[in-house]
Amino acid sequence: MTDAYSSLILPDVRLMVAEGDRHGMSEFCKVLHPAVVANILEELEPHEVWAILDHAELRLRVEIFEYIALRRQSEMVEKLDKRRLSELLEGMSADDRVDLLSRMPYDRVEDLLPLIAQAERNDIRRLLSYDEHSAGSIMTTEYASLPARITVSEALHQLRQQAPDSETIYYIYIVNSARRLEGLISLRELILAKPDAKLSELMQRDVIRMRVDEDREDVVQELARYNFIAMPIVDNNDCLVGIVTHDDAMDVVQEEATEDAYRQGGVEPLRDDYEDTPLPVILWKRGIWLLLLSIVALMTAGVAHHYEQATKPGGARAGEAPEGLTSALIFLFIPLVMASGGNAGSQSSTLFIRMFALQPTDAAVAGTGFRVDRELVLRELAVAACLGGALALLDFAVIQFWFNLGMDRSFVVSLTVFLIVILGTTAGTILPILLRRAGMDPAIMSNPLIAAIVDILGVVIFYEVALFLL
Amino acid sequence: MTDAYSSLILPDVRLMVAEGDRHGMSEFCKVLHPAVVANILEELEPHEVWAILDHAELRLRVEIFEYIALRRQSEMVEKLDKRRLSELLEGMSADDRVDLLSRMPYDRVEDLLPLIAQAERNDIRRLLSYDEHSAGSIMTTEYASLPARITVSEALHQLRQQAPDSETIYYIYIVNSARRLEGLISLRELILAKPDAKLSELMQRDVIRMRVDEDREDVVQELARYNFIAMPIVDNNDCLVGIVTHDDAMDVVQEEATEDAYRQGGVEPLRDDYEDTPLPVILWKRGIWLLLLSIVALMTAGVAHHYEQATKPGGARAGEAPEGLTSALIFLFIPLVMASGGNAGSQSSTLFIRMFALQPTDAAVAGTGFRVDRELVLRELAVAACLGGALALLDFAVIQFWFNLGMDRSFVVSLTVFLIVILGTTAGTILPILLRRAGMDPAIMSNPLIAAIVDILGVVIFYEVALFLL
Repeated sequence: MTDAYSSLILPDVRLMVAEGDRHGMSEFCKVLHPAVVANILEELEPHEVWAILDHAELRLRVEIFEYIALRRQSEMVEKLDKRRLSELLEGMSADDRVDLLSRMPYDRVEDLLPLIAQAERNDIRRLLSYDEHSAGSIMTTEYASLPARITVSEALHQLRQQAPDSETIYYIYIVNSARRLEGLISLRELILAKPDAKLSELMQRDVIRMRVDEDREDVVQELARYNFIAMPIVDNNDCLVGIVTHDDAMDVVQEEATEDAYRQGGVEPLRDDYEDTPLPVILWKRGIWLLLLSIVALMTAGVAHHYEQATKPGGARAGEAPEGLTSALIFLFIPLVMASGGNAGSQSSTLFIRMFALQPTDAAVAGTGFRVDRELVLRELAVAACLGGALALLDFAVIQFWFNLGMDRSFVVSLTVFLIVILGTTAGTILPILLRRAGMDPAIMSNPLIAAIVDILGVVIFYEVALFLL
Repeated sequence: MTDAYSSLILPDVRLMVAEGDRHGMSEFCKVLHPAVVANILEELEPHEVWAILDHAELRLRVEIFEYIALRRQSEMVEKLDKRRLSELLEGMSADDRVDLLSRMPYDRVEDLLPLIAQAERNDIRRLLSYDEHSAGSIMTTEYASLPARITVSEALHQLRQQAPDSETIYYIYIVNSARRLEGLISLRELILAKPDAKLSELMQRDVIRMRVDEDREDVVQELARYNFIAMPIVDNNDCLVGIVTHDDAMDVVQEEATEDAYRQGGVEPLRDDYEDTPLPVILWKRGIWLLLLSIVALMTAGVAHHYEQATKPGGARAGEAPEGLTSALIFLFIPLVMASGGNAGSQSSTLFIRMFALQPTDAAVAGTGFRVDRELVLRELAVAACLGGALALLDFAVIQFWFNLGMDRSFVVSLTVFLIVILGTTAGTILPILLRRAGMDPAIMSNPLIAAIVDILGVVIFYEVALFLL
């Protein structure tokens, strides 16, 4: 719904910027949900985005900015002047701010910190110090907390003061003067309670909590298990240092699922969404696995070669028996060809299936996905050509100099590998796209099935190339 | 933390039940968080669970019961008498109740419904009618709603009345007399507002909403994008019919990620957690894919066979050239052997990696995971023996009667397939367990790498079996 909407409104927004329509830009920021505005702004150039956001008041500007994807955020602040940037950072919530800062060059951060208020600066330094996969890295320090001794009506009064600086006020943590976590009361319980009741009588005492150095995945699992809106995070002295909220937990679940899916498909996890990742990074994250898997497949060929030499009468070298000329070569290297095609295909289908899983289906239905599809398919083919070429070179060198099978046969194998990588990638790309266009779940075509189909094609290509060239 | 805790407290709980310690059982239900109680109860037999829950008052009993895994819930109610069951169902929240009912036999549900209050009965019938993957299937009908014309203080008063029957009161939906969704106000905004302000002045009017027949995955993606606690669900007339809450959305994200991971690993999605799924179901969900993939691999062998016959001088049958005896056979069926071992291994590693991803790591560290590990490895080996045996029979039949290669060679291939399926499964099972015990992420060992390693072993086994038997 919203994606189709974005593409409809985009030309109008561009026009507003071009014409410098102050009123229009201000209204645009105000009327729509900040997440929808952010979604539309992601389609524009940084200078256009700032031209628009300058017409929103700071609070709203920050809110919209926080909904923009992290990678886009860091592009946007690259050329922003220090004063406007520090203003923005001060307004941001503690966790989003640290995520952005941790992506900025060290020098720039050190340059900026003096411009930020002391309290926030200390907060930033502490949050930046937590390990990337710890609870500390995903928590926010902006939570609502109250002492146990006050009454419900006093609590509601204090809460109204804390509300602007709290990520959530639906869970209120009860801490003593040393900030040790003593209890929890929900806003629901608070408004249902008698105004003169003491919090100490109402609060739950045995509060589920997690330590700041625990794995963020565990924090998220526990939050999900207890259906919490937020999980309190304590340090080693049981003092409250932050909370992990349900929305950040949801992001972590999605990120971890993506990481696991990538690993399962033989792709090193990417930091950003696949469609936002630059080509060289993709080549590296995929190439490193294809290379490793090719080396193992070459070892498989080596093992078969060894058995052949040991068992053949007269110790004939593989591929030398006249009538076995083609088949002996194919025999040794068919596992290599299949692994190359299958793995390249698995990588593509994994990337596309996961990308689609994180997108609403209506993007495809509304037709806004078509242009993107064509660009992505072309990029996949470029990736396939590079990776296929690299693997072909490796295979050629190994077969020529290690297996010692001669130029012509080495060339046959490399050419086959190159072609099957292109073909595997095409299959792994096109099948999920077609399934999605047909309104089906792209994931129903499992990677092993794509690999199995590519296997048959591998045999055909290998024979055809060998028969043609040898 | 909590898992280790559960295993410590379990013997005491069993003792309480055996001794009929009423006070102890009642305290046990009261003192701990309902999710922790549920977690411990899952280790007990249904009659023990009821013995304990009978000592908790109905409200608490329902709350604890709702935290028990769905599969376990349906086991538990199997022998429960109608009166106690209907009491339980009446108390449950609308969405959890329907999930449970949809797992019960049709006759039993029809038998029960007359015992349930009219309003709830209609609600159940409506919720049961939604498609399994629609927004309707995951929404609850228990939300807080108010008219636009009342003041903040009136709203807070009415909200206190609605609170016990609402899943969340943090988002309050503003509806007109026809229940059309007109606005949204959060409890946070409500308590910050002046008591005599009208809701119509305060509410957000452009409320993001989704339709009841939209895909549940899309609903969850949108909820995550807007960082909502709940997403309102409307019918075709834009009337509010339910809400999807953040905790149910989280469950859907995890379920969908598991489904996709399974498909990627060539396993048909399971309804329950892997460790709770009975053996015959696992055999079927894995077997169906292994069978399909084996048929494709046999087709690959068929293609190679065809080329061999077409290109060999004199059209000699594969495996007939004296010095090619072993290698020709191996050549034709190495793709089959590799596919069988690699796919069986991928299935095991996929199931184990996903199972571990959904468990807290401390279960392994605290040692409670060890017994479970041994049981699961033994079950995997039983699965491998069954699946390997079935594939071996299929391969034997096809090679014997379609390729016509003779009993001895058909047997060599089948035996190799059987052994490599066992070996692949073992590798796919043991590697994730070892990585987890070592405190590493089990997912870093990608499926393609496990498959590649199994490939080498496949070649070795194939040669050794062939040399030994032929």
